[in-house]
Amino acid sequence: MTTIATSGLTCAVPMIAVERVQLGHGSGGKMSAWLIGDLFVRELQNAALAEMGDGAVITGGADELVVSTDSFVVSPIEFPGGDIGSLAVHGTLNDVAMMGARPLCLTAGFVLEEGLELATLERIVASMARAAREAGVPVVAGDTKVVERGKADGLYVNTTGIGTVDPLCRPGPRRARVGDVVIVSGPIGRHGMAIMAAREGLAFESSITSDSACLVPLVERLKASATPVHVLRDPTRGGVASALNEIASASRVAIAIDEETLPVPDNVRAACEILGLDPLYVANEGVMLAIVPAAHAVGALEALRSHGLGRGATIIGNVIAQPQATVLLRTALGGTRIVDLLPGDQLPRIC
Amino acid sequence: MTTIATSGLTCAVPMIAVERVQLGHGSGGKMSAWLIGDLFVRELQNAALAEMGDGAVITGGADELVVSTDSFVVSPIEFPGGDIGSLAVHGTLNDVAMMGARPLCLTAGFVLEEGLELATLERIVASMARAAREAGVPVVAGDTKVVERGKADGLYVNTTGIGTVDPLCRPGPRRARVGDVVIVSGPIGRHGMAIMAAREGLAFESSITSDSACLVPLVERLKASATPVHVLRDPTRGGVASALNEIASASRVAIAIDEETLPVPDNVRAACEILGLDPLYVANEGVMLAIVPAAHAVGALEALRSHGLGRGATIIGNVIAQPQATVLLRTALGGTRIVDLLPGDQLPRIC
Repeated sequence: MTTIATSGLTCAVPMIAVERVQLGHGSGGKMSAWLIGDLFVRELQNAALAEMGDGAVITGGADELVVSTDSFVVSPIEFPGGDIGSLAVHGTLNDVAMMGARPLCLTAGFVLEEGLELATLERIVASMARAAREAGVPVVAGDTKVVERGKADGLYVNTTGIGTVDPLCRPGPRRARVGDVVIVSGPIGRHGMAIMAAREGLAFESSITSDSACLVPLVERLKASATPVHVLRDPTRGGVASALNEIASASRVAIAIDEETLPVPDNVRAACEILGLDPLYVANEGVMLAIVPAAHAVGALEALRSHGLGRGATIIGNVIAQPQATVLLRTALGGTRIVDLLPGDQLPRIC
Repeated sequence: MTTIATSGLTCAVPMIAVERVQLGHGSGGKMSAWLIGDLFVRELQNAALAEMGDGAVITGGADELVVSTDSFVVSPIEFPGGDIGSLAVHGTLNDVAMMGARPLCLTAGFVLEEGLELATLERIVASMARAAREAGVPVVAGDTKVVERGKADGLYVNTTGIGTVDPLCRPGPRRARVGDVVIVSGPIGRHGMAIMAAREGLAFESSITSDSACLVPLVERLKASATPVHVLRDPTRGGVASALNEIASASRVAIAIDEETLPVPDNVRAACEILGLDPLYVANEGVMLAIVPAAHAVGALEALRSHGLGRGATIIGNVIAQPQATVLLRTALGGTRIVDLLPGDQLPRIC
């Protein structure tokens, strides 16, 4: 998920005056950007926050460290392909990985609702432990709080991840350059649609499972291939469209993507059509965007495809000069349209 | 607040079988210890968690780091002497400081309830920013999520703190030794009773304000005095009684405290009497316990009293050999009684 650090970008977005928090403030779209940019970053200002990464770089004694934090409020807490425990591990590890860093450890802070079944909690914690073990990253500290019935929705989890910076791999959202290509590591839209289907009790023809996964091994493959990676981003809340908009803003470039190349699975596309959603805005939890120089595209694709998670890696677009801070979609019919940030929510509580 | 790491201690506590999360699981008492020890530590097992500090020590490249996490669910979110924003900064910085470490940075993760007034949120974030600025520790990364009305109680905050270990100051709950003295840095019971009074709309004769404060400067004074500090602990949830019980268990010693020496302010004592509460179990957020060799007691007291926060520092007891893992209270009447961990809640949602 994006951190405060991601969102200095849109303080200029004109907003209808609101006096109360709305669901749209958590959407990853324009309202989120306003809340974060105009309130949190302004109040808490410091150099690390003003950067626009998935986490912050700090200097811890002799080493540079990456730190990223994320709260998880996904509903339902168990869904096809994962649960809030594994998601909380994958989500934060992925944010650390998107900064090119090697994750060292995680912390976990739980807010539990009175009345939550202990058996459910045990499954969630076991799933979190399994995900952490598979990633080889320990959960070194934690905390639990309990609130009264009706003051939470089962449970919420915050995870914070710490990693060490790799001096040879320093991707960042400001580093997209004209001439770069945009690669997506796999099929998009699965996580969001799996949650929607579980929440609404929709039974699609073929059931959709979340793509929730740890992206660290994919980043390692890219590094091993010596690809000079300019930008890495996991398109979670707000989907590929929001992630690319943030990158285009931060790098002062345009990003053009080709509709025909977008890897949208058939069952995701069908579900999106039924619900009137655009897969470009649907959250992913096991997919990343990599922006690399065109000359290194083949090497990067080979590196990604060498791992199961990246088997479907494909080029979906490229970085162009104009119009700055804009994402364009070249449609299958030969037209071009602007892919904007949504103002508020397409899918609330997706992560 | 205590982390998962604090609570391997009481898996042996016999528990009535429960199938659902209860408020007592968040109390800092026996039920908390069971939940944490029997579920979280068992599932997430690793060396850092198995330690019993206020946070975990990890090795980040060349440096040893301390990391501590805490979720804050205090109700009400604004109270005399502070609010959830400043509390979330103080609480986590204090946990890092209690490990003898120098805090480097904080992260903040917010869960906001739809309908929360933005003006309230602005006050909380401004207060958090002020507390962080005063402590000289930046909030480097953050995250916001929004849940529907009725799925949170205004807002919850998680903060995670990272610090660098001081090789010359490595206090820990296992390090209390027979012959040490127990010092408390100031008057006890204020935070918990301020929250209770605010929550219940009680108007005591003189109003009680929370002691919420950053303890880092006090720890710095102790270090500067070259006191060999064995244990530092901030007695938050569960109060002085629970903190001392955890230390006595971890160090396999007994701790005897003298009722007459306990610095309980008159207004706190009066409020506790009205409500039938014991100030030993009431949460503090700006007070610490320091356990040091008797030979260094005078130097430690002088160091603490040289700072405004420690003006009321006083010796409240000493470490003895038997009965192991026990806290004894020598009463004003000359008797002795055991000060046990409470099973569940005296005051829910105090932090």
